[in-house]
Amino acid sequence: MDYKENIIPHDHQIKLKDRIQKYGFEPKLLWFTGLSGSGKSTLAGAFETWLFNEGYHTYILDGDNVRSGLNSDLDFSDVSRKENIRRIAEVAKLFLDSGVVVLTAFISPFKEDRQQARELVGVANFIEVFVDTPLEICEQRDVKGLYAKARAGKIPNFTGIDSPFEAPDTPDVHIETAGKTVEQSLNELINQIKTKLK
Amino acid sequence: MDYKENIIPHDHQIKLKDRIQKYGFEPKLLWFTGLSGSGKSTLAGAFETWLFNEGYHTYILDGDNVRSGLNSDLDFSDVSRKENIRRIAEVAKLFLDSGVVVLTAFISPFKEDRQQARELVGVANFIEVFVDTPLEICEQRDVKGLYAKARAGKIPNFTGIDSPFEAPDTPDVHIETAGKTVEQSLNELINQIKTKLK
Repeated sequence: MDYKENIIPHDHQIKLKDRIQKYGFEPKLLWFTGLSGSGKSTLAGAFETWLFNEGYHTYILDGDNVRSGLNSDLDFSDVSRKENIRRIAEVAKLFLDSGVVVLTAFISPFKEDRQQARELVGVANFIEVFVDTPLEICEQRDVKGLYAKARAGKIPNFTGIDSPFEAPDTPDVHIETAGKTVEQSLNELINQIKTKLK
Repeated sequence: MDYKENIIPHDHQIKLKDRIQKYGFEPKLLWFTGLSGSGKSTLAGAFETWLFNEGYHTYILDGDNVRSGLNSDLDFSDVSRKENIRRIAEVAKLFLDSGVVVLTAFISPFKEDRQQARELVGVANFIEVFVDTPLEICEQRDVKGLYAKARAGKIPNFTGIDSPFEAPDTPDVHIETAGKTVEQSLNELINQIKTKLK
């Protein structure tokens, strides 16, 4: 038998609309996508600080807090990468329902997975932020030394090296970081995104 | 090679201490445990309303929003039940880190799993709330008709019927609901718990 038919919703007394009314803003998911080293986490962190100071309740989901905990059972195979993105989107959906603006910073190289995340949380809640930094620059920076390892064959299926990055065709927000300071990129992000947040 | 060595933490600029300072309370996980029909979700919902009106940021994780989304790939086998609880605790940990008071309402019948959840989120953050309603009463209520199905053999491994409920020996909060209104149970809960929340 299908167990799911036995899950009967309770009528929670505090609804999302109550939270929106009390907190004074509408929760959205800002989905940062880009190569390793593109500046996703840096930019998401800087933008979160801005949002927090503006009075939004915010949270960042990224490899640091998700891969080490909830998704620690997943490896980097194609199946696990897909499950990784699914769970991130599901967790983001819970945060949105709690009234929090969520920022996710994952390479998320595949269009299909990003589309799945968009549909899962609801198209109107999803803002795709493409942090567009050329591979050459990411590889030059190589903050974590990962590109060197990938080039040496020590990390298989590394995005940009031996696994593709499918850039968004029509991202909601598009930030080219090359030649810009973090502050400049942040200002551009704020300008592009602020009309999408209430 | 172990990929995890390649996950290098970013220095997020907004920390939990910043959220605590701004929001004015410390996040805790209130883990409601008890039989199906014991009143966990009802009591958690009523308590959330109280907390919300007191100015806390809150969220409830329960079967309605977790089983239908994040954990929709899990069945009710022993392995999946364990994984179900692990993921709930991991998600609760993320919510705590975001500064939110989390209430979970799951039968969570096994001591070992509850202990694992307690350790995972940090002992000081975990408040076990035992919603103690005798099986006979839960079965009489049978709000969802699940006990009737379980007695008819249509739901195997149903807690209290053919799967054990391991009651907490020393719960942080202990509410016996028999013969009480929801309001009476709620008042008792508030009295027992309010010194544990800041």
